[in-house]
Amino acid sequence: MGVVVNLNNKAKVSSALDNMTALVKDDMKLVNRLIVERMASPVEMIPQLAGHLVNAGGKRMRPMMTLAAARMCGHDDMRHVTLATAVEFIHTATLLHDDVVDESNQRRGQASANALFGNQASVLVGDFLFSRAFELMVEDGALKVLGILSHASSVIAEGEVLQLMTTNDTETSEAAYLDVIKSKTAQLFAAACRIGAVVAERPRVEEDALENYGMNLGIAFQLIDDVLDYSAKQAKLGKDIGDDFKEGKITLPVILAFRRGDDDERTFWRRTLEDLDQQDGDFDLALQLMDKHNTLVDSVERARHYGGMARDSLGIFKDNPYKKAFLQLIDFCIDREY
Amino acid sequence: MGVVVNLNNKAKVSSALDNMTALVKDDMKLVNRLIVERMASPVEMIPQLAGHLVNAGGKRMRPMMTLAAARMCGHDDMRHVTLATAVEFIHTATLLHDDVVDESNQRRGQASANALFGNQASVLVGDFLFSRAFELMVEDGALKVLGILSHASSVIAEGEVLQLMTTNDTETSEAAYLDVIKSKTAQLFAAACRIGAVVAERPRVEEDALENYGMNLGIAFQLIDDVLDYSAKQAKLGKDIGDDFKEGKITLPVILAFRRGDDDERTFWRRTLEDLDQQDGDFDLALQLMDKHNTLVDSVERARHYGGMARDSLGIFKDNPYKKAFLQLIDFCIDREY
Repeated sequence: MGVVVNLNNKAKVSSALDNMTALVKDDMKLVNRLIVERMASPVEMIPQLAGHLVNAGGKRMRPMMTLAAARMCGHDDMRHVTLATAVEFIHTATLLHDDVVDESNQRRGQASANALFGNQASVLVGDFLFSRAFELMVEDGALKVLGILSHASSVIAEGEVLQLMTTNDTETSEAAYLDVIKSKTAQLFAAACRIGAVVAERPRVEEDALENYGMNLGIAFQLIDDVLDYSAKQAKLGKDIGDDFKEGKITLPVILAFRRGDDDERTFWRRTLEDLDQQDGDFDLALQLMDKHNTLVDSVERARHYGGMARDSLGIFKDNPYKKAFLQLIDFCIDREY
Repeated sequence: MGVVVNLNNKAKVSSALDNMTALVKDDMKLVNRLIVERMASPVEMIPQLAGHLVNAGGKRMRPMMTLAAARMCGHDDMRHVTLATAVEFIHTATLLHDDVVDESNQRRGQASANALFGNQASVLVGDFLFSRAFELMVEDGALKVLGILSHASSVIAEGEVLQLMTTNDTETSEAAYLDVIKSKTAQLFAAACRIGAVVAERPRVEEDALENYGMNLGIAFQLIDDVLDYSAKQAKLGKDIGDDFKEGKITLPVILAFRRGDDDERTFWRRTLEDLDQQDGDFDLALQLMDKHNTLVDSVERARHYGGMARDSLGIFKDNPYKKAFLQLIDFCIDREY
């Protein structure tokens, strides 16, 4: 039995995110203010470029998780605002560097910063935001948070290098793919959640629970992201799809199709994704092969597995509106339009 | 009166550096060991690429200054080894990103990391080393050091963006140029020295003195670096010169020549450095104009001015072998072969 792909879940999905957004609304206003304040620099291009990305309409999921986790853990001060801002700066820095590495011209449907300002500025403004993130954490003064986020940052960089090495390699295993998405995506989700418990000075078991929640949610989130890049529904909504295919990125829908396919199919995957020798109709054929082997539906099923683990991680917390919103966030991550 | 360019100072100059090298030799062995240990990663390309750069034969000036400053201030523990390693990691990360930004194919006479491993890996391994630097500082646990180096890192990034904006702009003022080299080079020299006093828990006045020393030394060092790129002596020694000219980088020898030149000369500078429309013989003409206006000699004279301030910054410290080596380091930075 496959998963039932829900095609009419838009209202449910957006309300799943809206509840958490509403809960942290006031705190997030302060985060947004601090973001603008701390992007300031006498070097004009820095706030221009950073502002372009920060204002590009991201969902601010990572700082939202820090804010909500801190409040769920009973934090009644405002330190979590500083730390949530640091998390968003680290995320923004990695986006800037990612776009350079991927040579992307688009980000969230708009021209990417590197396309507008050049790769050079994107590298350097990324470095600036990354340093600013650490300055913010130093101002907060919690060495434990500094340790969590400096470690997360090196794991993210390792994950990105690993991804670089698996790109165009159709032999990439599901395990290697999981290593990449754990490092490049889930690690920062995990850190963003964990520091909520740290700032609230909760016992280690609660830190661990939030970290596990974030890690599993992050894996599910990235799995769905990778499915969406092949989603007919997304295409119907006017969103760009097929970028991963064009670049030869090896994501789970491809890994499963390659392993379940016959020799002719593997030859097709090698030509298109390893040699990047792509012709008209190749992307459609890729979609047909994924359909034949049910790999998109099964990738969503894998995401649900991690979503389930994220859900159980929160078991130790008492019911409250924040916990409810964290549980809904799992639905949001998995039931996005695909 | 111009400065007397000493053409026979090779022995004097290398002994100037050798004394400091000898003083910190044992500590530096531990730094080198820690560098290798902390570049380790299951992602093979990371130690490969980082090792390429770390082993490329740099002088390790920045960690050397941290080690010597700590010892001069009476530090009798080994914490300075960790911090010196963090300083070298930050420096290495900025080199990796610099080479991507400059599109350099050479670094210290060898193929640069981006030429060998690609820009993508250089960006990401730079991020990794930068994060590792912060992990090292967190292990040490001194928030004050974390504050100094996170601030230095954002100033460095600002300086690099500023440099990007002045590249190819012949109207760049000496003041704007100084802002760039203070940020991109001198700030890390200053931080490397300051944390020596911090780790030895010396009073603020000694921290400030070492910071001022490092700042002024760094300015002098970069001024001379920029002179060396036009130095006939360097060319005779078989070193590459003319890279800044090729890229249209606006350094002090050019700024002075542009301001002291007539309209025809300014047209020449605009064509070659703004429009990058360069023909055979243009570099030689640039050298002739610099000679005519004495701009290389005067740039060295400017470097001596900052060297003098670096010297006076150390006045509050008692005479000892470390102080002597710091004073000799000024001579080394200024009297390198030019």
